Amino acid sequence: MSMSEKEKGKEKALKLIEESIKFILVETTHPGNIGAAARAMKNMGIKQLGLVSPKEFPNEKAFYRAKAATDVLENAEVYKTLKDAISDSHFVVGTSARNRKVPWPIVTPKEAAEKILSLSQQPESKIAVIFGREDRGLTNAELGLCNLHVHIPSSEEYTSLNLSQAIQILAYEIRLKALSVEGMLEEQEWDVPLAENAEVERLIEHFEELMQEIEFYKVDNPRQLLTRVRRFFRRSKLDHLEANIFRGVFASIQKKLKK
Amino acid sequence: MSMSEKEKGKEKALKLIEESIKFILVETTHPGNIGAAARAMKNMGIKQLGLVSPKEFPNEKAFYRAKAATDVLENAEVYKTLKDAISDSHFVVGTSARNRKVPWPIVTPKEAAEKILSLSQQPESKIAVIFGREDRGLTNAELGLCNLHVHIPSSEEYTSLNLSQAIQILAYEIRLKALSVEGMLEEQEWDVPLAENAEVERLIEHFEELMQEIEFYKVDNPRQLLTRVRRFFRRSKLDHLEANIFRGVFASIQKKLKK
Repeated sequence: MSMSEKEKGKEKALKLIEESIKFILVETTHPGNIGAAARAMKNMGIKQLGLVSPKEFPNEKAFYRAKAATDVLENAEVYKTLKDAISDSHFVVGTSARNRKVPWPIVTPKEAAEKILSLSQQPESKIAVIFGREDRGLTNAELGLCNLHVHIPSSEEYTSLNLSQAIQILAYEIRLKALSVEGMLEEQEWDVPLAENAEVERLIEHFEELMQEIEFYKVDNPRQLLTRVRRFFRRSKLDHLEANIFRGVFASIQKKLKK
Repeated sequence: MSMSEKEKGKEKALKLIEESIKFILVETTHPGNIGAAARAMKNMGIKQLGLVSPKEFPNEKAFYRAKAATDVLENAEVYKTLKDAISDSHFVVGTSARNRKVPWPIVTPKEAAEKILSLSQQPESKIAVIFGREDRGLTNAELGLCNLHVHIPSSEEYTSLNLSQAIQILAYEIRLKALSVEGMLEEQEWDVPLAENAEVERLIEHFEELMQEIEFYKVDNPRQLLTRVRRFFRRSKLDHLEANIFRGVFASIQKKLKK
């Protein structure tokens, strides 16, 4: 069977989203929502599900609501903390209600899908999309672990979507982007894999440590300083080598300072 | 309060979708799905709900799942037949699983949303979007009453979306079209102006200077190291404050090292 180049590109993109994307649900209260999420994901060809401290799981309500997506539930991985869940992720997208004091780069679901698809083409990339609790979403600390924040444009009269509906919209946009693949092949492959999440986290911690050692504080608002540094490193999509260079530099500085 | 033309256009479009669009659910079996549908609609600013021979309605499960969209349920109109429900509609869109023997013009949710928005601008237009039964959608006869068929692109492995999820996607696309401003959220103002080119250049030079002072060189290829650092800072779109923080940290380190 011969396929057009476009068909091949599409098939490849659909395979990539299945292999590289994991949806992670943090402290979900209702098991029915986990089942509905699994179905919404599989309908769009996304199958990797991570659960951080779900209130009740496994649970028959989840399996009932998943309908023909029980395989997604059976293969779901359960973690104690969000940090565990994303430790091997190269890129982390967090869903946000969008009224933070320090603004982060915040994008539409469509823009997030474009970014995710483009990153999924990096060899062996692992991309996590994080969804918060039914009643209050993700905490600021959890959003601080993300590289990108996405916001679903909802009505001012009623902004809060059901969890599985938010998942449906993100999954739908990712699938649409995979089906459209236009311009996909134009993306130049990066020479070095992206830094894994744990590497970026260590780098940020290392920089904070260094700032403490040199007693560098903005007098007026030290916490904001740390938030800004974190936000910078999180959004800048470091690759593995860049992370190594910075850590090497920081370590050398610390060594010199100790002499 | 004065608004830009763009803001006025957006507000008008949102008002039009509220006034002109009705979502109609045909013979829904599970009242929970009706409640979830009401919430999904209101989240996107669509409030007119029609129900054709629902199996159980009103029902407390529907009200439970609707959460803060109970007003949509309270105002829902119940009809005996689909023909009754659409008798005053000017344009009818039907959702379809897309494997009909006689092909109809079939569009994506995005294309349907464009059509719907453009029609909503006609004075007093009434547009109906029809959703079928949970297990088998709309009949051929019902689809025959529609002007346009829309299909949600789903995975071949699992094509059938939950009813309220299909409703969420259509409502989302209609809202996006009303907001109509691709990349809208990008316009969110950053709190700090971006660093000017000369600032970034000084920052890079400062970092290079620091690396020399601590004698940090990769033995194999020092030039590549500098190139990588430069590429990193150049592509990361630093803002003015971030550039200042880094330069402040570098200067403090240099001062400490000199002691």
